[in-house]
Amino acid sequence: MGETNLTHVDESGAARMVDVSAKDVSARRATAAGQLRTTAEVIDLLRRDGLPKGDALAVARIAGIMGAKKTPDIVPLCHPIALTGVTVDFTLGETTVEITAVTRTTDRTGVEMEALTAVAAAGLALVDMVKAVDPAASISDVRVLRKEGGKTGLWSREDEQ
Amino acid sequence: MGETNLTHVDESGAARMVDVSAKDVSARRATAAGQLRTTAEVIDLLRRDGLPKGDALAVARIAGIMGAKKTPDIVPLCHPIALTGVTVDFTLGETTVEITAVTRTTDRTGVEMEALTAVAAAGLALVDMVKAVDPAASISDVRVLRKEGGKTGLWSREDEQ
Amino acid sequence: MGETNLTHVDESGAARMVDVSAKDVSARRATAAGQLRTTAEVIDLLRRDGLPKGDALAVARIAGIMGAKKTPDIVPLCHPIALTGVTVDFTLGETTVEITAVTRTTDRTGVEMEALTAVAAAGLALVDMVKAVDPAASISDVRVLRKEGGKTGLWSREDEQ
Amino acid sequence: MGETNLTHVDESGAARMVDVSAKDVSARRATAAGQLRTTAEVIDLLRRDGLPKGDALAVARIAGIMGAKKTPDIVPLCHPIALTGVTVDFTLGETTVEITAVTRTTDRTGVEMEALTAVAAAGLALVDMVKAVDPAASISDVRVLRKEGGKTGLWSREDEQ
Amino acid sequence: MGETNLTHVDESGAARMVDVSAKDVSARRATAAGQLRTTAEVIDLLRRDGLPKGDALAVARIAGIMGAKKTPDIVPLCHPIALTGVTVDFTLGETTVEITAVTRTTDRTGVEMEALTAVAAAGLALVDMVKAVDPAASISDVRVLRKEGGKTGLWSREDEQ
Amino acid sequence: MGETNLTHVDESGAARMVDVSAKDVSARRATAAGQLRTTAEVIDLLRRDGLPKGDALAVARIAGIMGAKKTPDIVPLCHPIALTGVTVDFTLGETTVEITAVTRTTDRTGVEMEALTAVAAAGLALVDMVKAVDPAASISDVRVLRKEGGKTGLWSREDEQ
Repeated sequence: MGETNLTHVDESGAARMVDVSAKDVSARRATAAGQLRTTAEVIDLLRRDGLPKGDALAVARIAGIMGAKKTPDIVPLCHPIALTGVTVDFTLGETTVEITAVTRTTDRTGVEMEALTAVAAAGLALVDMVKAVDPAASISDVRVLRKEGGKTGLWSREDEQ
Repeated sequence: MGETNLTHVDESGAARMVDVSAKDVSARRATAAGQLRTTAEVIDLLRRDGLPKGDALAVARIAGIMGAKKTPDIVPLCHPIALTGVTVDFTLGETTVEITAVTRTTDRTGVEMEALTAVAAAGLALVDMVKAVDPAASISDVRVLRKEGGKTGLWSREDEQ
Repeated sequence: MGETNLTHVDESGAARMVDVSAKDVSARRATAAGQLRTTAEVIDLLRRDGLPKGDALAVARIAGIMGAKKTPDIVPLCHPIALTGVTVDFTLGETTVEITAVTRTTDRTGVEMEALTAVAAAGLALVDMVKAVDPAASISDVRVLRKEGGKTGLWSREDEQ
Repeated sequence: MGETNLTHVDESGAARMVDVSAKDVSARRATAAGQLRTTAEVIDLLRRDGLPKGDALAVARIAGIMGAKKTPDIVPLCHPIALTGVTVDFTLGETTVEITAVTRTTDRTGVEMEALTAVAAAGLALVDMVKAVDPAASISDVRVLRKEGGKTGLWSREDEQ
Repeated sequence: MGETNLTHVDESGAARMVDVSAKDVSARRATAAGQLRTTAEVIDLLRRDGLPKGDALAVARIAGIMGAKKTPDIVPLCHPIALTGVTVDFTLGETTVEITAVTRTTDRTGVEMEALTAVAAAGLALVDMVKAVDPAASISDVRVLRKEGGKTGLWSREDEQ
Repeated sequence: MGETNLTHVDESGAARMVDVSAKDVSARRATAAGQLRTTAEVIDLLRRDGLPKGDALAVARIAGIMGAKKTPDIVPLCHPIALTGVTVDFTLGETTVEITAVTRTTDRTGVEMEALTAVAAAGLALVDMVKAVDPAASISDVRVLRKEGGKTGLWSREDEQ
């Protein structure tokens, strides 16, 4: 299909930061999620740490929020963007931590990369936190759930509607 | 098990950058991997872009190498470390890109977080590259395959030996 | 008081970058100040260095200006913001250096954290500069003097009006 | 005194990063402290937030730890250094939060700037957290309490021994 | 000429980030160029590497794009700016690589520093790439070719119109 | 010549951070230089600014020193390195500013990229400073003059011995 190309490389294959000057400034929001896969023992430690002054999940949450801000520094072709809000949440399962991030902006491009980077950074911070107990911990299913705003409007992941 | 604790929080639950002053400087190496899950159409575009001057995979490789260097900035409790080598490789499957990163140091702590961060950053750059064609692309199985060196010596993932 | 809460944590106590998408873009300005406390000997050295080509105060001034730009990287829950102007000034007293910073923006949130970070960074650079002569040098009274613009309008420190 | 000069500027007054190549690698440690000055109401909110999942102090602690790592980026003439450990602690008083940071390295220069930067960054994060409730909150007495290691050996603040 | 002053220092000589709050938001574009000077042997290696999977030029291109984003971090008095597009291109000569960068924004100040920083960063990455073969490689003629938009309108380099 | 290859790409053309784990830690030093080309009017302004409190050259010097520290962040395949000293000097000519940087380390790789980055960053800061007066200012001849230490020993630029 001739019209389906990678937008981030030009016709000669050269990488570029796509020109978005002509796009409208509008409120945009993205939700991404991912999962830490670990052991029941680790989840138990995180739960106990969820008690007074336990910083384990806070470290990961802050890693996620700061990760969202670092997106243009981590993802080479991303535009620097005026993030207007970020939240990162965790749900503890039996052997998993579900990570969800919501990012907002009022700018010219979407914020799904910021939401994905928040999830990845939070996931990396969780692995770092638990790796002495579970060196096999992994991060999976880092994906966009939903994006809203901009010209393309609402996109929502089919298998999770 | 009372003795199994999260090393990154103290007995009161406060986060800390663990003191590694007394650990030996030694050659250490870590290998991590992960997977971009996308569509056959995207893989085809990446393959074609693998032709002259195609920068798509190069962007992701460099994102991975630079991501490894940014680890102490992304993962809050990681020590700044003297990375002495980083490689990032890609294997194109039918609907996947397998990402592998190897990191090396001659320092006081292991480099598995650097390898994992390289894989995550490369994965994020790939998603950014293909998201206009496949907005549902995801990153999975970001995990350590193997770590060598230091007091604990060789650790290798059981299910992938 | 039920309505008085920390805005940066939600009702469950989780940290967040507050959503400011709905706030108006408007001209905002903040002034912050602080003080380096040191010895008369150090002040004398800084004064002499204030002569041709003396870089001591310039280093601190630039640390302050660059510190203002790094605010979202240093203060975890701060929004990235379009700073439109920063000045940092010093007044040498007998055993003190008074540091004043003014920051400006045309954005959705105030810039008092940027002004405070400029003062703190300039203060740290001054301590670094003089610590070989006065290892007991300290930074005090880092505070907002005045903020203007935005919905809340003018706020000015009572004891310094 | 002719021999007492600012080490960070040369004889012509030009700033420089002092050459420490010839200094010995040795274990070094520094302790710094500082104080957030606020209202009893804020302290009460922080205490309550010290309950399950309250992230307020965790945000400041992590800002401090990450701030220590960012020192060479914030303080222009500081050497990049291999931090081997950082802790940041808080003691709530009636209207104050006492901030203490301990930094460690095994490198060629001391880590007191890293400890001071940790205290300043934690203080800034606390101000950011409480500023909606107490816009007059300030940071004071950011100072080195003690440094150990290196050629100069132990230095300890007189008024706080 | 009394009215011709360095805008980045005030009347007392103190550096400042100039206040641009009152300037209009408008579409702006800048083009800068520069040259890597090296040997015919290196150019031949770069050409050959221009074949399948060769990352050499891609590394330099990405260094340029990311360098443009880092401008406010590298150039002390530059405003942080919302870059809306960056391209970096290379033309191989006999013993030279001509580097061209185009930057775009819709903001309050021009983007010529961003274009120059992109060229310089790409040039540095090229030198790093070839220095084992040609330790004498150099970067020259880093200059603005053209800037458009804003109150001053079009400026174009005389000797290259 | 088959054996002359770009060390930063492997046999398949993929970029990498070369493994230097086996290289010796040794004292290394590099000197680089470059030139700002501008007008006699600008040089006159810089000279006058060289008087009391003039920050113009100080801004460029600090940009150079901080640029040296940012090298691994700007040049994608550079190793993070323990810089032990940086100086940046300027010589004003009739229509030029000669920029010289000396960098030192005690580490596993040379510091010529750090010296070149210091020169480039200082040059960019100078252009930024003078661009309102001379929009045609350019940076040229950014090159290594001399490197010492490590296995290859002394290398010195032929045309400038």
